[in-house]
Amino acid sequence: MTIKLIGFHAAVPTLRVITTLNELGVPFEFSPIKDREDFKSNKFFVDKNPFGKVPILIDDGYIIYESRAISRYLVTKYQGKYNDNILIPDDIQKVATIDQHISIEGFYYDTPISTIIFQEIYRKKIDGTGPDPEVIKNEREKLAKTLNSYEKILEGQKYLTGNDVTLADILHYPATVYIISKGYGDLWESRPNVKRWVEDLSKREVLKEIKNRLVT
Amino acid sequence: MTIKLIGFHAAVPTLRVITTLNELGVPFEFSPIKDREDFKSNKFFVDKNPFGKVPILIDDGYIIYESRAISRYLVTKYQGKYNDNILIPDDIQKVATIDQHISIEGFYYDTPISTIIFQEIYRKKIDGTGPDPEVIKNEREKLAKTLNSYEKILEGQKYLTGNDVTLADILHYPATVYIISKGYGDLWESRPNVKRWVEDLSKREVLKEIKNRLVT
Repeated sequence: MTIKLIGFHAAVPTLRVITTLNELGVPFEFSPIKDREDFKSNKFFVDKNPFGKVPILIDDGYIIYESRAISRYLVTKYQGKYNDNILIPDDIQKVATIDQHISIEGFYYDTPISTIIFQEIYRKKIDGTGPDPEVIKNEREKLAKTLNSYEKILEGQKYLTGNDVTLADILHYPATVYIISKGYGDLWESRPNVKRWVEDLSKREVLKEIKNRLVT
Repeated sequence: MTIKLIGFHAAVPTLRVITTLNELGVPFEFSPIKDREDFKSNKFFVDKNPFGKVPILIDDGYIIYESRAISRYLVTKYQGKYNDNILIPDDIQKVATIDQHISIEGFYYDTPISTIIFQEIYRKKIDGTGPDPEVIKNEREKLAKTLNSYEKILEGQKYLTGNDVTLADILHYPATVYIISKGYGDLWESRPNVKRWVEDLSKREVLKEIKNRLVT
């Protein structure tokens, strides 16, 4: 049995899956894609995901894409098999609150962050222009609004769904580290609860490797 | 035990939850919100969702928001209790494929549709202007690209994850009916598999009520 992960080396969605694999201690084989053209020209990949996106995970023949769905699958199948980390506890309401926060992460946290990252990093590479100040301003405002709500939730509890870290928290890690490294750290620094939350996540041994992947 | 749903009467996210409740046959009490101001001015609601959004579901004291997370919770807790409809079968890989398609629905299907709906319906109400032709063109292209991938998936199978309808399919229903009613039906009509898929969903007794809610 081999788990194979196809993805971009330092892209946030791929790193979300690697984060989950690391947390669960699941061994895997990584097949890096060079760039979008490399993906599109390769029938092997396109056949596996008709939406033309990575990451794609292949687990003993079973193919799954979409980073959050992959992560949830990995937890359901491998939690407790390689170590004692519990990312989704066995309780209907706790599971639902985790799903709720994964949804929030996708739509209100990662969406502005990935738009900013696209502007800061890729727009220069793609069309030679720099980031659009109007877009940066709008997305920064959306992100600040989201962080205000996180600040309220994290008042009196360590993590998003209570005092134990869950899949909902760790899925935030790659995008957070990435954007903070690009000069947006003030948004976290100015909010004591979200600041502490990121500091606590950063202390996790398995997340240090993610940080190194982003820095290189 | 009472299930209470707080939401906007004819808004897609609220209707996604009502769709799930109907499919499962779960009785509920609906508390409609008049508009965004009505929501923001009501501490009762704001305290329940720090992100200031509806729908919000309250199940015997347990509070959950985010329409897809609510729907998944309802299936986990109530599937098989009020009728025989199975929206998430008991199989790790089938569950994961359903999660994958719910993620696709949220990011690549509902996102362009809700942007178009905002342009077509609300922009006139909010600032008196009509839809921005550039935005409509871009979002229509994104949606067409998504539907091309759906067309491929639905080749040789009735529904997104196989020959049985699941939560992944029914969550698409309200947005699809809404945007088709606004003059975008050609995007489905021109693709035989997605056309058939929507027709099959439309035949479901429990979904007819959703269509009526949108028309009024």
